[in-house]
Amino acid sequence: MSRAGAQTFVYDRPPVIAAHASLAGPKEGEGPLAAWFDELLEDDLLGQKSWELAEMEMVRRCVQRALDGAELAAEDVHALLGGDLNNQIIATSFAARSLGIPFLGLYGACATFVEALVLASALISAGDLGNAVCSASSHFCTAERQFRFPLELGTQRPPQASWTATACGSAVLLPHGAPGRLRVAAGTVGRVVDLNITDTNHMGAAMAPAVFDCIAAHLADLRRTAEDYDLIATGDLGWIGRNLLLALADRAGVGLPPEKLVDCGASLYSQEQDPHAGGSGCGCVASVSCGWLMKRLERGEFRRLLLVGSGAMLSPTSSQQGQSVPGIAYAACIEGGND
Amino acid sequence: MSRAGAQTFVYDRPPVIAAHASLAGPKEGEGPLAAWFDELLEDDLLGQKSWELAEMEMVRRCVQRALDGAELAAEDVHALLGGDLNNQIIATSFAARSLGIPFLGLYGACATFVEALVLASALISAGDLGNAVCSASSHFCTAERQFRFPLELGTQRPPQASWTATACGSAVLLPHGAPGRLRVAAGTVGRVVDLNITDTNHMGAAMAPAVFDCIAAHLADLRRTAEDYDLIATGDLGWIGRNLLLALADRAGVGLPPEKLVDCGASLYSQEQDPHAGGSGCGCVASVSCGWLMKRLERGEFRRLLLVGSGAMLSPTSSQQGQSVPGIAYAACIEGGND
Repeated sequence: MSRAGAQTFVYDRPPVIAAHASLAGPKEGEGPLAAWFDELLEDDLLGQKSWELAEMEMVRRCVQRALDGAELAAEDVHALLGGDLNNQIIATSFAARSLGIPFLGLYGACATFVEALVLASALISAGDLGNAVCSASSHFCTAERQFRFPLELGTQRPPQASWTATACGSAVLLPHGAPGRLRVAAGTVGRVVDLNITDTNHMGAAMAPAVFDCIAAHLADLRRTAEDYDLIATGDLGWIGRNLLLALADRAGVGLPPEKLVDCGASLYSQEQDPHAGGSGCGCVASVSCGWLMKRLERGEFRRLLLVGSGAMLSPTSSQQGQSVPGIAYAACIEGGND
Repeated sequence: MSRAGAQTFVYDRPPVIAAHASLAGPKEGEGPLAAWFDELLEDDLLGQKSWELAEMEMVRRCVQRALDGAELAAEDVHALLGGDLNNQIIATSFAARSLGIPFLGLYGACATFVEALVLASALISAGDLGNAVCSASSHFCTAERQFRFPLELGTQRPPQASWTATACGSAVLLPHGAPGRLRVAAGTVGRVVDLNITDTNHMGAAMAPAVFDCIAAHLADLRRTAEDYDLIATGDLGWIGRNLLLALADRAGVGLPPEKLVDCGASLYSQEQDPHAGGSGCGCVASVSCGWLMKRLERGEFRRLLLVGSGAMLSPTSSQQGQSVPGIAYAACIEGGND
C-alpha cells in the first residue's frame, strides 16, 4: 500500500462497503432526510430504563442490521471499530459486548465514524482484517445531560448551539473484489487544530479550522482539487460552521465551490425544526452518510464523495478549566460505480 | 501482510520500536521499578493549576522525550495514536494539539497503549504510515475524582481496589529495517468479555476473563503455546487478577506457567506501599513496558515478550445504572535481538 502524502493513506486494494445501516430518532424522523434512514425510532428510549441503555441498543441494532445486509454473522466479523460521545464510549463497547465481536475502541468525537472508516479500510486493504464493521452513535439525551445541563431544567440554548442527533450509522467493509458498489479509496488523518474558540456552544467555529486543514491536506497529498470530487460532505459544522469553512478556504486560496459542499448537520434538520446551528454528534455523519449519501452514491447520482468527519475534542472538565475547544477531522474518499 | 487467524495480525514487515520514554509520579518513584523510568515527577501537579492540565503536560513531555530519542521532530511525525482515561481523552488530544501531530484517538481503557501498538504496527507494516508514536497516560488524581470520589473526602478504599498510576509511556515506531533492537511482530485484537462482575472496585476480576480470552486467541491464531514466550506481561490485573487469570487458564487447560507471567500493576508498587490490589490506569502498562520491559528486552535479558493490555470498559454512568463491568484486552508480541 502506497502512502500518497504525510497524512493520506491510498488503499492499494480499496475495500468495499458491502452493506450499511442507519437509524434515527423521532426528531430526525421529522426532518428532510427521514425517508433515507433504514429505521426510524418512535420512542428514543427504545423501551429501556435509561437513555444510555437505549443508545447501547441503538448501536447493537444498527450494527446487526448492517451485518444482516452483508449476510455476515456476528461471530464471523473480525472487528468492530467505532465509538460514541458517552464517557468511556460505553454505547459502542457495551454493544460490542452483546455482539461478541473483537473491538477496537476509537474516540474522535463527532468524527469517530470517519476515523473508523479510515482505519478499517487500511487494515482490510493490508489483509490484516478479512472484514470489519464501523459504527458510531449519539443520542440527544445522553449527550445533553453529560455535556451540558440536565434536560429537566429546560435550559435555553444559544443560537450557535447545535442539536445532538439521536442516530447511529454502521457500515460493513469487505476486501477489494467483494460484491458491492461502493469502495473506500483513500483516507486522511487530521491534526488537532485550535483557533482558541472558548464558547463550547459554538462547535461549528471550533471545528471548521480542523476540517479545512484536513481537506487541504487531503487535496495536497493526492495532488487533487475540489473539482476531482462530485460532492464534499462535512460532518456536523452546521450552517454557521459551513460558512466559516468556505471563508477559511477562500482566505487560503483553496477552491471549495459552495455548490459541491454539503454538511450532514445542516442537512439532517430543516431550519423550521429549530435545531439552531444544525445537527451534531457522532451519529450525525454516521447516519447521514450510511443513509442519504451512500444510497445516492449507489444510485449513481454522483460518483466520488469526500466524506469529512469533524469533531470537537472538548470535555466538560477541559471547558470548566478554561481551555479552548480543539477540533479534529478525518476524511474518506468513497467512490461508487465500477472500477 | 498475512492474517494468522481471526483476531491476530502478523506483521510481514515488523515495525521497529526506535525509541521509548516513560515518566512516573512520586508514589511510583518510591516503588520497585523507580530506577527504570526515564523521568520521575517530584510533584504530580507539574506546576499546573489542575491535575488534568498536569496530565496533558505529562503526555506532551513523554511523547517529546520519545521523539527526541528517535531524533524525530514533531512536524515529521505521521501520527500519534493513543488515549487516556479522562472523559473524551483530553490528556492525549490536548497534547496532540500542542505537538501538531496528526491524531488517531483511541479508547481501550487501561489497554489503550497496547491497542495503539497493535494498530500503529499494522499501519506502518502496510506502508500507510512512515512512522508513528504511541502513547497512553493516567493520573491518580484525575482518575480518582472522575471515576470515584473527590480526593478531599479521603474515602477508604476496599482491599480489592487498584491504585491508578500517575504515569505515561510513549514509543516511536519506524518501518522494518530502521535502527533499533525491538520490533513488534504480531498483534491481537481482543473481544469485550463480561462475566458479570458488578463490583466496580474489583477491576482485576472484571478484566481477567478478557485477558485470558485474548491470550488464548493469540496462542491459537499463531499455533503457539506460552512456551514460545520468555515472558508474558499483563497490564494491570494486580495481584488478585493475576491469580484469577492463572485459575482461568488452569480450568481451560491452557498452559500458563506462573513463572512466565508478570503483571505490570503488580510490579509497579511494593505491597508495603499499600496500593491494595496493585497498580492500574492506562499509564501503568504504558510506563512499565516503555521502562522496565523494553529496556530489559534491549539488554537481552529475554527475547520474546507477549504484552497484554487489559481494560475495564465501565463508566460511572454504566455502573450507577447497574451494569456489570466489561473487560477488553489487546496483545502485542514484541521481540528483541537481531532478526
